[in-house]
Amino acid sequence: MDSNLTLALDAMGGDKAPGAIIKGIDIARKRYPNVHYLLFGDERRIGPILKRFSKLGGICEIRHTEELIGSEDKPSHALRRGKNSSMRLAIDAVRDGDAAGVISAGNTGALMAMAKFVLKTVPGIDRPAIAGFFPSMRGESVMLDLGANVDCTTENLVQFGVMGAAFARTVLGIQRPKVGLLNVGTEELKGHETVKAAAEILREIELPFEFSGFVEGSDFGPGTVDVFVTDGFTGNIALKTAEGTAKFYAWNLRAAFRRSLMSRLGYLLARPALLALRERLDPRSYNGALFVGLNGVVIKSHGGTDARGFASAIGVAVDMAHGKFNETLIEDLHAFIAPEAAPRAASL
Amino acid sequence: MDSNLTLALDAMGGDKAPGAIIKGIDIARKRYPNVHYLLFGDERRIGPILKRFSKLGGICEIRHTEELIGSEDKPSHALRRGKNSSMRLAIDAVRDGDAAGVISAGNTGALMAMAKFVLKTVPGIDRPAIAGFFPSMRGESVMLDLGANVDCTTENLVQFGVMGAAFARTVLGIQRPKVGLLNVGTEELKGHETVKAAAEILREIELPFEFSGFVEGSDFGPGTVDVFVTDGFTGNIALKTAEGTAKFYAWNLRAAFRRSLMSRLGYLLARPALLALRERLDPRSYNGALFVGLNGVVIKSHGGTDARGFASAIGVAVDMAHGKFNETLIEDLHAFIAPEAAPRAASL
Repeated sequence: MDSNLTLALDAMGGDKAPGAIIKGIDIARKRYPNVHYLLFGDERRIGPILKRFSKLGGICEIRHTEELIGSEDKPSHALRRGKNSSMRLAIDAVRDGDAAGVISAGNTGALMAMAKFVLKTVPGIDRPAIAGFFPSMRGESVMLDLGANVDCTTENLVQFGVMGAAFARTVLGIQRPKVGLLNVGTEELKGHETVKAAAEILREIELPFEFSGFVEGSDFGPGTVDVFVTDGFTGNIALKTAEGTAKFYAWNLRAAFRRSLMSRLGYLLARPALLALRERLDPRSYNGALFVGLNGVVIKSHGGTDARGFASAIGVAVDMAHGKFNETLIEDLHAFIAPEAAPRAASL
Repeated sequence: MDSNLTLALDAMGGDKAPGAIIKGIDIARKRYPNVHYLLFGDERRIGPILKRFSKLGGICEIRHTEELIGSEDKPSHALRRGKNSSMRLAIDAVRDGDAAGVISAGNTGALMAMAKFVLKTVPGIDRPAIAGFFPSMRGESVMLDLGANVDCTTENLVQFGVMGAAFARTVLGIQRPKVGLLNVGTEELKGHETVKAAAEILREIELPFEFSGFVEGSDFGPGTVDVFVTDGFTGNIALKTAEGTAKFYAWNLRAAFRRSLMSRLGYLLARPALLALRERLDPRSYNGALFVGLNGVVIKSHGGTDARGFASAIGVAVDMAHGKFNETLIEDLHAFIAPEAAPRAASL
């Protein structure tokens, strides 16, 4: 964490921009003192807020632009018309080497379209994916794709596996991560042709991960594998189902505690432990979806997140840059595409 | 609930058969005093257990067979070799009019294959689906398909919507249910071609339900719609993700209560309320997946369920038979296939 690092931020993206973004930097500053920030957006709106945080003056630089991408703008419109938008200029900064990564809490589709257009995919990756990580009984797992590709080929799924494993190694710090393919059952005969074919290829790949075969929706909680691979349709629905179920459970729990005087008293006594639990499961701690497979670190923060959530997204960008996620991925893909460099038979 | 009803039970299916099945009948008997049961299976194993429940003698009849379908048997093998199995004979009883419905806690694939072969699909339904219902903030919702069809066409999804709505009306008692198509976002442009085309057709259908457009994984908790329609791949993963997330939440909650002396005391005080919550969310209360679209009521009980769970599955079969689910579905499909009978323009 000692090396200097610069991140490009879309200071105008998200429901609470630019306030939550600047406050988020102030939270992240304590954890990552050597990171610098390029803030793309309207100087007249960013400047006055920035002045309130005396310690940010030395690490933040405003790059003024009045244009921005709206949350309802179509990706195609953003691509054609958004060349001077805060989001686009922040992405350009990564392409130009001015920043190691970009973070935006704005329009997801526009961010993906522009990042793909400007940064291009890493050789060996056909389509970038959106990845996210979440808590489990065993620690943390990563899942991809979360919605970038609603239709996926066998090759897409295989590439998602390789990218997810590289993320687990470089960011989650798992030396030899377990990779599983999400399916409707764990038997080899289950599922549609695309997952069956992807499983066959993943089983043969020689990279520093272990392919655990098929996993199910019930494996998220126990964290059976470190990397859950699936298409963007299923992944998006699984993610939102998990978030929704957690909210439903919490809603029921609150109702249960309100049920009687005794249960209210019980809540008061257990409150510190319950707050610690809420803290552990706080979705803001897991904010920051990663666009993987692009030449550069691109992080999508939840649009509705607050300063604390944005600070988590900064943390993910820092971890990916410092952990050399992209460099590792490129090496892995090189070994995978040119397998003669690492003879297959050796470890089979 | 006054009319007589006979159900055919595969007394040998499931991890705890036949014990849990017979105990399950004893629980269900109190709620449905006029239901009779045909128990298909090994008389030597069923008989002694049945004798222990004095009130079951008058409502149960054993139909002896020594053959059974194993939990690992492939559906094709079950179809060819299982003609005298307890599962098959129980299905045959529905075809022959001896029973209004069949319940099995055995091999899901074999049950679907044999039920399809013996009972055939209702005219207008290409492929039967597996449906299940679950609690939400608004009450109960039904979802289908839960795994019978991993690849679905637009027509399949539309038919699932019609079947789900018929179930919500006849069993959940919702006069004009809301039907939603599971997707990665609620905007019309989102998702793959199959869901987009299905939405267009569902929007035009004139049957006693309201098509609410696209819904997301986050809509399960709030119960935004009464019927969640999706393909069997996504539905299976969403269901298991929800179940797994609930377990993960409960696991964390237990750990939180064990955290300190105060939190343990808090748990003791809140215990009655927490037990009531557990009761409300008990998966056994929602046991019984419905195979819809077949000529007859077919219920798949969870293989690992206990007597209470099996009693819930009996309850679902009784509700579907008494609620005239199949009759309603056939009427609906008739109106849908022959729309000239009910002029479309009228309510558009």
